[in-house]
Amino acid sequence: MVNERWLSGLLKKVQVGDISVTEAVAELSVLPYEDLMHAKLDHHRSLRTGFPEVIFGQGKTLAQLVVIAERMAAHSQKVLITRVDAAAYKAVKAVLPDARYNEAARAIIVDRAAKKKGKAGIVVLTGGTADIPVAEEAAVTAELMGNEVQRIFDVGVAGIHRLFNHLEQIRGAKVVVAVAGMDGVLPTVVGGLVTCPVIAVPTSVGYGANFKGVAPLLTMLNSCAPGVAVVNIDGGFNAGYLAGLINR
Amino acid sequence: MVNERWLSGLLKKVQVGDISVTEAVAELSVLPYEDLMHAKLDHHRSLRTGFPEVIFGQGKTLAQLVVIAERMAAHSQKVLITRVDAAAYKAVKAVLPDARYNEAARAIIVDRAAKKKGKAGIVVLTGGTADIPVAEEAAVTAELMGNEVQRIFDVGVAGIHRLFNHLEQIRGAKVVVAVAGMDGVLPTVVGGLVTCPVIAVPTSVGYGANFKGVAPLLTMLNSCAPGVAVVNIDGGFNAGYLAGLINR
Amino acid sequence: MVNERWLSGLLKKVQVGDISVTEAVAELSVLPYEDLMHAKLDHHRSLRTGFPEVIFGQGKTLAQLVVIAERMAAHSQKVLITRVDAAAYKAVKAVLPDARYNEAARAIIVDRAAKKKGKAGIVVLTGGTADIPVAEEAAVTAELMGNEVQRIFDVGVAGIHRLFNHLEQIRGAKVVVAVAGMDGVLPTVVGGLVTCPVIAVPTSVGYGANFKGVAPLLTMLNSCAPGVAVVNIDGGFNAGYLAGLINR
Amino acid sequence: MVNERWLSGLLKKVQVGDISVTEAVAELSVLPYEDLMHAKLDHHRSLRTGFPEVIFGQGKTLAQLVVIAERMAAHSQKVLITRVDAAAYKAVKAVLPDARYNEAARAIIVDRAAKKKGKAGIVVLTGGTADIPVAEEAAVTAELMGNEVQRIFDVGVAGIHRLFNHLEQIRGAKVVVAVAGMDGVLPTVVGGLVTCPVIAVPTSVGYGANFKGVAPLLTMLNSCAPGVAVVNIDGGFNAGYLAGLINR
Amino acid sequence: MVNERWLSGLLKKVQVGDISVTEAVAELSVLPYEDLMHAKLDHHRSLRTGFPEVIFGQGKTLAQLVVIAERMAAHSQKVLITRVDAAAYKAVKAVLPDARYNEAARAIIVDRAAKKKGKAGIVVLTGGTADIPVAEEAAVTAELMGNEVQRIFDVGVAGIHRLFNHLEQIRGAKVVVAVAGMDGVLPTVVGGLVTCPVIAVPTSVGYGANFKGVAPLLTMLNSCAPGVAVVNIDGGFNAGYLAGLINR
Amino acid sequence: MVNERWLSGLLKKVQVGDISVTEAVAELSVLPYEDLMHAKLDHHRSLRTGFPEVIFGQGKTLAQLVVIAERMAAHSQKVLITRVDAAAYKAVKAVLPDARYNEAARAIIVDRAAKKKGKAGIVVLTGGTADIPVAEEAAVTAELMGNEVQRIFDVGVAGIHRLFNHLEQIRGAKVVVAVAGMDGVLPTVVGGLVTCPVIAVPTSVGYGANFKGVAPLLTMLNSCAPGVAVVNIDGGFNAGYLAGLINR
Amino acid sequence: MVNERWLSGLLKKVQVGDISVTEAVAELSVLPYEDLMHAKLDHHRSLRTGFPEVIFGQGKTLAQLVVIAERMAAHSQKVLITRVDAAAYKAVKAVLPDARYNEAARAIIVDRAAKKKGKAGIVVLTGGTADIPVAEEAAVTAELMGNEVQRIFDVGVAGIHRLFNHLEQIRGAKVVVAVAGMDGVLPTVVGGLVTCPVIAVPTSVGYGANFKGVAPLLTMLNSCAPGVAVVNIDGGFNAGYLAGLINR
Amino acid sequence: MVNERWLSGLLKKVQVGDISVTEAVAELSVLPYEDLMHAKLDHHRSLRTGFPEVIFGQGKTLAQLVVIAERMAAHSQKVLITRVDAAAYKAVKAVLPDARYNEAARAIIVDRAAKKKGKAGIVVLTGGTADIPVAEEAAVTAELMGNEVQRIFDVGVAGIHRLFNHLEQIRGAKVVVAVAGMDGVLPTVVGGLVTCPVIAVPTSVGYGANFKGVAPLLTMLNSCAPGVAVVNIDGGFNAGYLAGLINR
Repeated sequence: MVNERWLSGLLKKVQVGDISVTEAVAELSVLPYEDLMHAKLDHHRSLRTGFPEVIFGQGKTLAQLVVIAERMAAHSQKVLITRVDAAAYKAVKAVLPDARYNEAARAIIVDRAAKKKGKAGIVVLTGGTADIPVAEEAAVTAELMGNEVQRIFDVGVAGIHRLFNHLEQIRGAKVVVAVAGMDGVLPTVVGGLVTCPVIAVPTSVGYGANFKGVAPLLTMLNSCAPGVAVVNIDGGFNAGYLAGLINR
Repeated sequence: MVNERWLSGLLKKVQVGDISVTEAVAELSVLPYEDLMHAKLDHHRSLRTGFPEVIFGQGKTLAQLVVIAERMAAHSQKVLITRVDAAAYKAVKAVLPDARYNEAARAIIVDRAAKKKGKAGIVVLTGGTADIPVAEEAAVTAELMGNEVQRIFDVGVAGIHRLFNHLEQIRGAKVVVAVAGMDGVLPTVVGGLVTCPVIAVPTSVGYGANFKGVAPLLTMLNSCAPGVAVVNIDGGFNAGYLAGLINR
Repeated sequence: MVNERWLSGLLKKVQVGDISVTEAVAELSVLPYEDLMHAKLDHHRSLRTGFPEVIFGQGKTLAQLVVIAERMAAHSQKVLITRVDAAAYKAVKAVLPDARYNEAARAIIVDRAAKKKGKAGIVVLTGGTADIPVAEEAAVTAELMGNEVQRIFDVGVAGIHRLFNHLEQIRGAKVVVAVAGMDGVLPTVVGGLVTCPVIAVPTSVGYGANFKGVAPLLTMLNSCAPGVAVVNIDGGFNAGYLAGLINR
Repeated sequence: MVNERWLSGLLKKVQVGDISVTEAVAELSVLPYEDLMHAKLDHHRSLRTGFPEVIFGQGKTLAQLVVIAERMAAHSQKVLITRVDAAAYKAVKAVLPDARYNEAARAIIVDRAAKKKGKAGIVVLTGGTADIPVAEEAAVTAELMGNEVQRIFDVGVAGIHRLFNHLEQIRGAKVVVAVAGMDGVLPTVVGGLVTCPVIAVPTSVGYGANFKGVAPLLTMLNSCAPGVAVVNIDGGFNAGYLAGLINR
Repeated sequence: MVNERWLSGLLKKVQVGDISVTEAVAELSVLPYEDLMHAKLDHHRSLRTGFPEVIFGQGKTLAQLVVIAERMAAHSQKVLITRVDAAAYKAVKAVLPDARYNEAARAIIVDRAAKKKGKAGIVVLTGGTADIPVAEEAAVTAELMGNEVQRIFDVGVAGIHRLFNHLEQIRGAKVVVAVAGMDGVLPTVVGGLVTCPVIAVPTSVGYGANFKGVAPLLTMLNSCAPGVAVVNIDGGFNAGYLAGLINR
Repeated sequence: MVNERWLSGLLKKVQVGDISVTEAVAELSVLPYEDLMHAKLDHHRSLRTGFPEVIFGQGKTLAQLVVIAERMAAHSQKVLITRVDAAAYKAVKAVLPDARYNEAARAIIVDRAAKKKGKAGIVVLTGGTADIPVAEEAAVTAELMGNEVQRIFDVGVAGIHRLFNHLEQIRGAKVVVAVAGMDGVLPTVVGGLVTCPVIAVPTSVGYGANFKGVAPLLTMLNSCAPGVAVVNIDGGFNAGYLAGLINR
Repeated sequence: MVNERWLSGLLKKVQVGDISVTEAVAELSVLPYEDLMHAKLDHHRSLRTGFPEVIFGQGKTLAQLVVIAERMAAHSQKVLITRVDAAAYKAVKAVLPDARYNEAARAIIVDRAAKKKGKAGIVVLTGGTADIPVAEEAAVTAELMGNEVQRIFDVGVAGIHRLFNHLEQIRGAKVVVAVAGMDGVLPTVVGGLVTCPVIAVPTSVGYGANFKGVAPLLTMLNSCAPGVAVVNIDGGFNAGYLAGLINR
Repeated sequence: MVNERWLSGLLKKVQVGDISVTEAVAELSVLPYEDLMHAKLDHHRSLRTGFPEVIFGQGKTLAQLVVIAERMAAHSQKVLITRVDAAAYKAVKAVLPDARYNEAARAIIVDRAAKKKGKAGIVVLTGGTADIPVAEEAAVTAELMGNEVQRIFDVGVAGIHRLFNHLEQIRGAKVVVAVAGMDGVLPTVVGGLVTCPVIAVPTSVGYGANFKGVAPLLTMLNSCAPGVAVVNIDGGFNAGYLAGLINR
């Protein structure tokens, strides 16, 4: 391990003449690259202080989830486990009694940070009720990053007055997360009405030529409204994380 | 050819005893199937009286266009040649001096029917200016079928107030043709605002993940708004024809 | 809420001199945009009088269905719940005793409107027996909108005489809904035989290179016959709704 | 119904002067188009004598299968029901005791024709053992059409000596059905070794970038060897039927 | 080279005792595998006597075409060069004065076989006029293989009476080649009307969601009519070759 | 037009008793919906003050470009015309002499705002040199919105030391725009190294299975690194606009 | 069967004059082609000595697996059965008591070769933990071919320091197998850091626009780093086999 | 810059007491991360000694090519510029007179290394003549890396005897590069005949459902033969580079 102690030892040897400068240069030049890198990246990690540790729960066994959750909770105040069911929650809660479960978001949350009011500015919209799980995943992610999230659900543009009823709230946002399946039209209409970034999240809600979210994905990538960026189909976590970064 | 004369002749022979009933039955039962079919379909054709003859010009040589146009104009008052350039128009005009050319629609039109005011009820919308050729193809088709067409272009929903400025006109339609490329969002928004059929026409206008019209095609097929039907990418003629059928 | 009472109150203050004209203009100019919009759209809604309220049942829990169905039935004479099974029907019937279940269409129907004979003009065709659920969804939708629907099933063109046996009926339609999976050929052949709009509905019936309805979808979008428009794969409701709009 | 009796009756009336020739012409000219068509197509059907009646079993309920099977067996000596399991067989056998079940082909067969030796000339190959169900469906179809089928299974080209061990047999064929999943290479190699038509059948056997048969389908459509035609993925029945037509 | 002379020499040495049996076995067991294979395949080639040599012209330079054409014409009575323009023809004709050019098929043909009447039985259909080049490629291929080909063009099913006008001719075929772009519906309708094999050829004629022939390709692969096999998009040569094999 | 003058007029009539309160309510309740909307949206527009007017130049004629550019420049200090060549620039410059042309970005820029130093915080990266036009389009867009943009080009991860050489600069960003074709790997690697939002822009640079940008698009949508959002293939403008919104 | 005995017999007849040279040539020239081929390929097989026999277990019944495993184990020291569960293992172990089961790789292994230390040089990496089954399949395959495999799992580039921590080990490899789902970025980054071949294995791990492995497959095929080759999605066996071939 | 001189200087200061050990540790711990990385990677680069510098020429201007080629040739004995035409060669030759042009490969080559015989072991195959440019790109790449490459072209499996004529040569390879368009069958057949790695290169040669190389790409990814890895469509350079790495 390259660390101060090792460096000090080497330099002291130079200082007292135990090794020559040439020898020290040789030793330093074979300095383990990775360790330096590691140190550097640890510094980097500290930049991320306050960010939750995140576990993508899908496809992991209960045993794996419990082990990883325990380890992460040991050195982090905030842990988010996404895409897990109630059984996973039960297993995790056995070792982390302060874990909570957000059923709509299918997420387990540990948050031991001192409570303070979240930072306002994030609005999460959905086109339909079936898009809510993805929207909730975005919302709880942003909340765990210290934001207050305004949820406005079921405002699909087929009944455009529902959206317009919330126009002032939406226009007050610093960043909007617009979640929609089916035709994925919502982010374009919203993008034309606001002057902040819109994160568009296609969902796999739909049937037939929806192709499990490909239709709204393409709609959103081709949005005529400027200021719209897209994340993966059903990518609630990523949208919430990004909203959290933008709202810092 | 099965026709009245032939039938009369056969029956007269029965009447005067030249052939027996059994012989006549035999002859009738080998009656040329195709001819009967043809007669039937000719009757059918007469149902279409007033409809234009249509030539899909794309990929045809000038010589072919001229020959077909001449033949069709010989027995029809209305001829529509779609997807042709000015050179084709020049060639056709040489043999059909009353042909007109709609440059925006890239269409040659011959209309010798007695002029009367078209039937109102069809509104043609486009999202952008680049969608106009497809929209014009739809409009001239519907006009040639005897309709008056109201054109409202460049009302894409990214600037939704442009669309709303024309809301009353649009709501007055019997059928709306909504032409859009890019994200193809227009028909969904329109479909949520009217109570008449909306014919959605995706265009190949766009770039990148537009995939030459696939993106708006999928958006439109997955439209959350009821009452929206879709035609082929850049299918202006078909949309106009369909609008004409609906507005009859 | 912007409503008459509020407006009256404001105007009365102007009348009696409680506020100046300038003050009233200021107040009106910050008039809640959404409320006006809402009022306008309510007017719009009244245009839709006689239309059923529709609930897309797929993916909704029984609890959600019951709540939504009850609420809609409270202010509408006609409610249609699509893509639901018998269990959903049982749950809905507990709160809406006059609900009926169309098993083939997988739809729950509430219809309290005074019975009168439906408007003739809609013919619904299928290529095979497996396409019937989608066709029935179209049919019950159109019926609930006040139409009489003629069903002609299993007339796929591989045995084209079956289709021709019903030619006169089909030619008598104001609008034809042609439902087909596999190769999706039916709407093209029908489109060549009639002079009314044909709504083509691809179904996900088939295997292999059918790709869950993509094959018939493309066949229909590329139909050589004019007057054919397409809805989403398995989009029975939308086809029936559109047929209802055209047949008004 | 247009039939001989009706025609005879009409003609007799002409003969005896009950109606004039003009009246008879009028009556014949409104002759129900469909009935003539039907008669014609019945004649056509007789051309198909000796062909089995075929029921695509997939997606049909037991009740439907039993009813259709019974009706078809009532007027045909040969019935083939494809894509059915043992339960379906049990249900059908209850009403058609002479039905047999080919488990590998997942097909029910009724064959009451006088037994005679099948016509030689058809060879059915598979690349692997997993392709056998599709190959068997092809084989039993061809056999029911009166052919003798030579099965050579598991001769995929990755171990090309297995194929070459059967080269003379394969070269003796009038038509080869080559069934393969995975990379779908078999038909191309076979096509380069024989001088008869090769019917290529892609199967959905494989994983990953096989895309449920798309990979072998494209391989086969692009075959460098001339004389190779392709049917749908897993299209065993169609391949066998086509082989039967070619071997007549 | 393993040939009779070499084998004779070896065996003579055994006969006269120049080498022992053991030595001869050793020599034969290292017998060049490829040469034996080659001999075998030459025998195979002789089976193909009467077949034309075929050159896929697309993408080859004039120089390459001339060299290959000359070499092939040196040992074969029939040479077919597909997908070439008039310039290629001019270059080939300079060295092969008896070459002919079929402009519609874009093919150069050398045929020095004694003329005798072709074998009847092949019918080539097209849906539209734009499909003719592909159909002609099929036709000239089959003709060069010694067949007489009946061409029936522009009988697309959107105007189904055109097809029915030729029904008896089509029903007289031993094999039908059905060429169609757009929606690719023709082979299905034809397949329902005949009892011989139908080779379906999708063409890249169309626009929008046609995807350069993918739409008709899928339509044809999913054909409801039994007895339909498919070749590559624009695969006229392969279809003609296959028709020639079936009609032998 | 609903405006203050009209409102004042109406209210004054109420004030002086020319019309009753009831009459005024009635008049206000039929208030033109669109005009109110328009007013509202104009207010909205003012929110966008300082934003450039943008013209998507691709597919527009020189004449159209000149007209639109002139009109926009008449009421806006900043105009951006994207995807135009030098000829377009020449034509626009003739009417707008202060227009500049950024050749790399293929963009015409008019900027009459008082010059002040742009806001730092945006870094634009490219994987290769071929991605530069898209990156430049992003950069000039953000610059026109008042930002200072740091360009770091040709830092593709295949030679990852090139990227790491700029690590501190990149880590200093408020938002990173990462532009990459080929495999599209850059945004993921960058996303793992920074704690700000990363806007990923796939380009159509590549060949073969790149599919004109589909490969990098999918890579970016599936990025393992959190905080990455994606815009359309070659969507430089949108990325730059979004970066500008985030950096406000 | 062509074998030495048969050849000896024939040659002895020549030697003793029982048959003439001419007769022997004739007999040899009709020598069964396939048998020679077979002999040749058996020789070939011997080249593969030391390679395991491999059974693709997916889709095979327990009965089939047991029979094939027994037969292969009868003539081979090493048998590998891939894609099988514990039940399959139990069934196989009943007949092959020395079979082992690698649960992570889902593989049954029989290895009766004398144990000796494997050949070093192969490193298997995964991006995430969910990629481990595919990676293990690769590893056990390579091990059974006589290699020692170094596993370095969960070194996805989103946290690039994890990868760099193992840089020296990775750079010491003769061939690297890089297994990754999601965005599939790992092989590109690794390819830029090593000078040996990298076998990239996309996995179906991911969601949304991952399309079951298509996204990482395309990323890898378009890799900017030279020296990267790709196998099928989830193609662990093939990757391991290839690594084994390269490391020989 | 972190280099020996800087390190020596620092250490000497420690040695002579100019700075304390603590100060030196502090200075070293803020050691510019990138520079160390750079040094490390330079060491890495030296591992690549003997490798050519490679420029992907496609899409670069002549000016760019000349500048880059000159710079690279200044510090490397071997430069390879791929995908360039004769004009590019002329421009490069003007500054690098020892540049050669391989027209078939469309590559410019500078090779100033002492000539020695290349290392045998690489065989490059093509299915057809149209695949040669891609194969040549692979061959010249491998040759520039110090290998001798055996070219065997036009051995597509439709005429499998052509391939078998070269079987011993192919079996003698250490690594085979198999280049094929159309159906892409060649690598599978070759993979079944050899015991060395096979690098499969799909080409965009073909038409129709070839989809510019997608068909052979899928065939190759799904190859039944073990030991086959795939590179990008038309990826000749990468295949040659990989062959060079394997043959070291």
